[in-house]
Amino acid sequence: MSDADPIRRLVHAFTRLPGIGEKSAFRLAFFVLDADPQVASELAQALVEVRARIHKCSVCFNLTEQDPCRFCADGRRNERIICVVENVQGLLAIERTGEFRGRYHVLHGRLSPLEGIGPDRIHLRELITRLVGVDEVIVATSSSVEGEATALYLHRLVTPLGVRLTRIASGVPIGADLEYADQVTLSRALAGRRDL
Amino acid sequence: MSDADPIRRLVHAFTRLPGIGEKSAFRLAFFVLDADPQVASELAQALVEVRARIHKCSVCFNLTEQDPCRFCADGRRNERIICVVENVQGLLAIERTGEFRGRYHVLHGRLSPLEGIGPDRIHLRELITRLVGVDEVIVATSSSVEGEATALYLHRLVTPLGVRLTRIASGVPIGADLEYADQVTLSRALAGRRDL
Repeated sequence: MSDADPIRRLVHAFTRLPGIGEKSAFRLAFFVLDADPQVASELAQALVEVRARIHKCSVCFNLTEQDPCRFCADGRRNERIICVVENVQGLLAIERTGEFRGRYHVLHGRLSPLEGIGPDRIHLRELITRLVGVDEVIVATSSSVEGEATALYLHRLVTPLGVRLTRIASGVPIGADLEYADQVTLSRALAGRRDL
Repeated sequence: MSDADPIRRLVHAFTRLPGIGEKSAFRLAFFVLDADPQVASELAQALVEVRARIHKCSVCFNLTEQDPCRFCADGRRNERIICVVENVQGLLAIERTGEFRGRYHVLHGRLSPLEGIGPDRIHLRELITRLVGVDEVIVATSSSVEGEATALYLHRLVTPLGVRLTRIASGVPIGADLEYADQVTLSRALAGRRDL
């Protein structure tokens, strides 16, 4: 098959997605060819539509059809508290807890010097312009090295402005046995112990 | 997010692909939204094009842009020997060994009474019309229960017509799909074929 071959081109397009290697891409391509034509046409249409209709909220950078997004437009949500997340998946995870009724700020990434991702590659500085009248910024980046580095950067950025900055707790997941927790997690859980 | 939400629709479209659950589909959708717009447009275009331009060969049912396909159109290939495969992945795997210079017949499936896939759901009977002047039919279906059942059915279909029917040798690991077999194993299997 040459590169001009439509199958080869579809395989190549699939391999550009994360976690899909050449073998998986071939499997997907042949599935698409053998399946109901609707499978291909619906996916194609959804891809075009999502890029045409979904944009970043001009306030918080959540992905949304309307601008501002439904979280920024909802007057019942507390605008004096902002939760900073790495991506929309993080936002949705926080939202599923049902415990947070403030606003969000979506960075669309995390600092990673190794991958060449500096402060200007993610929506970090835009947070500063939102801090007037804000009481607290909750940093809900991941507990990875990059997530921690991003939290540290936010600390240097936000605390000079007199805004309270907090970090979601890391520790042993609820329901997990201590023996299965890795040493770093357990050390963090120990260091973060609170009075009962 | 409602079902009319473009993100939700893209997630749903991704989950219709094999091996992609809801969590993977969300990851893919958000990747598509964050990535270069080209990633989405190229995939959408490739999906539409592959369905528009790729069809089954009218002779062997290989997936192809031209009809008959390049294997059926190649006069240098021996037309007295036909290799029966379950799908195009199987064909490509046999082809990669470089040891087979005959023609192919792609079933597009395998017999599976449990899944309600009978002889009429795959291109079994079409093989009969191709057997005039053919010396040998090599059955290269997978070594799964369904692949063996398909081989057995072919035995009952082909041998009464006085055509030699052979089966690729075991050497292909039991239960594995042809596309995942390494070339040496597959070459060995071809060389060790025996009469059914």
